[in-house]
Amino acid sequence: MAKSPETELPLKAFGWAARDTSGTLSPFHFSRRENGDDDVSLQILFCGVCHSDLHTAKNDWGFTTYPVVPGHEIVGVVTNIGNNVKNFKVGDKVGVGVMVESCKECENCQQDLESYCPKVVFTYNSGYQGTRTQGGYSNFVVVHQRYVLRFPENLPLDAGAPLLCAGITVYSPMKYYGMTEPGKHLGVAGLGGLGHVAVKFAKAFGLKVTVISGSPSKEAEAIDKLGADFFLLSSDPAKMKLSSNASELLARAEYRRETAMGTMDYIIDTISAVHSLVPLLGLLKLNGKLVTVGLPSKPLELPIFPIVAGRKLVGGSNFGGIKETQEMLNFCGKHNITADIELIKMDQINTAMERLSKSDVKYRFVIDVANSFSSL
Amino acid sequence: MAKSPETELPLKAFGWAARDTSGTLSPFHFSRRENGDDDVSLQILFCGVCHSDLHTAKNDWGFTTYPVVPGHEIVGVVTNIGNNVKNFKVGDKVGVGVMVESCKECENCQQDLESYCPKVVFTYNSGYQGTRTQGGYSNFVVVHQRYVLRFPENLPLDAGAPLLCAGITVYSPMKYYGMTEPGKHLGVAGLGGLGHVAVKFAKAFGLKVTVISGSPSKEAEAIDKLGADFFLLSSDPAKMKLSSNASELLARAEYRRETAMGTMDYIIDTISAVHSLVPLLGLLKLNGKLVTVGLPSKPLELPIFPIVAGRKLVGGSNFGGIKETQEMLNFCGKHNITADIELIKMDQINTAMERLSKSDVKYRFVIDVANSFSSL
Repeated sequence: MAKSPETELPLKAFGWAARDTSGTLSPFHFSRRENGDDDVSLQILFCGVCHSDLHTAKNDWGFTTYPVVPGHEIVGVVTNIGNNVKNFKVGDKVGVGVMVESCKECENCQQDLESYCPKVVFTYNSGYQGTRTQGGYSNFVVVHQRYVLRFPENLPLDAGAPLLCAGITVYSPMKYYGMTEPGKHLGVAGLGGLGHVAVKFAKAFGLKVTVISGSPSKEAEAIDKLGADFFLLSSDPAKMKLSSNASELLARAEYRRETAMGTMDYIIDTISAVHSLVPLLGLLKLNGKLVTVGLPSKPLELPIFPIVAGRKLVGGSNFGGIKETQEMLNFCGKHNITADIELIKMDQINTAMERLSKSDVKYRFVIDVANSFSSL
Repeated sequence: MAKSPETELPLKAFGWAARDTSGTLSPFHFSRRENGDDDVSLQILFCGVCHSDLHTAKNDWGFTTYPVVPGHEIVGVVTNIGNNVKNFKVGDKVGVGVMVESCKECENCQQDLESYCPKVVFTYNSGYQGTRTQGGYSNFVVVHQRYVLRFPENLPLDAGAPLLCAGITVYSPMKYYGMTEPGKHLGVAGLGGLGHVAVKFAKAFGLKVTVISGSPSKEAEAIDKLGADFFLLSSDPAKMKLSSNASELLARAEYRRETAMGTMDYIIDTISAVHSLVPLLGLLKLNGKLVTVGLPSKPLELPIFPIVAGRKLVGGSNFGGIKETQEMLNFCGKHNITADIELIKMDQINTAMERLSKSDVKYRFVIDVANSFSSL
């Protein structure tokens, strides 16, 4: 008989898990492996709430195995290290992001592109040595040292947690696609967890930044708080009740952005709903690059004339490799970049998920994990 | 009263024009401007038959003004030069491609990217100083010296004509998107006028080349004659009667190319019919680039997961600037690259257009213009 999640591995762990497609999370006793020679164990202090956590909890993508403990924006303190671990010591502040294993031997792993390893093991909802990985909505985690990040000393741990996914997911394509040239004009489509961090990176790179959003309420925030240079309203304020229909809103944006047409060098598109690329492509200059990091569940329409006539490209990117994630964290330490967060306790997660599904968060929920579990 | 095309300009010209959406071409007397100080006049010797000629003749794109003389793969001999022309002399072998004017002042023109000038004037079916431009299915043409190309001495004029559009349209994106690294693997989707020249460029760059086509009959040609390394049949031979449905054929290709999945660094997609990008994206490696140069009349579906998970991009490109077109011609001269053609007389054009609409040509019709009109 198969062992239960609670006993199949030697170390008792505790977290909150989704059990079915309702996505509702509830307390969950499970188990984790012993700390091996190459492993680092950490007590989890904070964990960001990524939209992927919600998608997985509800099985939106169709490959969730329940029960699942979400969470891949993990910040914690090292409590144990294996014999082979030289770069971390007990007490270090560290982070764990979207992946916890890869093959280490393929071309991608050899080139520090572990996130593109065909055998990458995600931090939760992945198979690993006959068990399932479980994420950071839990009291501790055991991770191979290669996938552990050093957290910058000067950054707050809670607001820094979202850098582990939201941060690297926008930083990596900005670097790969060359969207970092000072003075160039970047459009950030969608001002959520990813978008608001993209604005901060862009300003640190020295870019001119326009936020493209369907929410007029975000204009002041984008400019006054996040430091964006311009705000482009992609919706008609009178029609805000339609604001969940990004496609329609962006189509209507045609009428409101005459002066913005053909002004942008790059756009990073963080919109996870199905939407039209036509208005965004129209904002780009010759040779403009539109990079999509949202994950709409259906294909988008790609109009060919605009990309041919303007030598434009539409590119993708998943998160980033470990080396680049560390580089990103160091960059954040240097430029004092963190996410804008709403700190919650673990037992508020279901309300938070509900609000996240409505984009009602500025801009990332972070769970105060350690203080949620301390009374157990 | 407006002057007739025959008399509105001082020089009497003769060609074949389409008069309506039937696309049927017939003899047409019209007129051209005097040779100005910056102009070069050329007697047209040969003109390639591009798919755009057919689209325009039939008004497929909705912006044809009749009557229209198609033809923008023009090779001829200089018969007159203006006072300011220093780089050409009477008797020179020259070429004219897709454009004959641009503003010369915008950022794109300044950067030798005239083909992306907002005021670019195409060789035919464009407005120019109150008249309409007419193309190379005609006895002569007068062109500003900036848009005249020097034709390599060692290349045959007839087989070289298609380089002026088909050639530059694939050469330019291969250079811009960096699809030229020796040893890398290029897929060429669609083996027509553009595709077969792309294969030749790719071999000259030192690439490994796979032709992706729905026509089994092209396998031997692709490998034995054009020098491709591999041939990937995107269709089921038993279903060849469906070969006009590129979308369905490529979808079925999923079952026949297991070993080709994830093997290509780049794909140049020359298919002008609406088709699925999914199978093509699946052929690409991590960081793979799919560049589309065909012009399907409707948007294509862009699946997001494959481009995100593989950091792939879909890019476009129109033709190229004059400087790059000259570079391409010189490259062809050096590597002895021309198109494979079927030479026709002007009065065979309607039959040729009919065959072109069925992709029944290996691989480009070229009109022997001078010998068609010599008896007039």
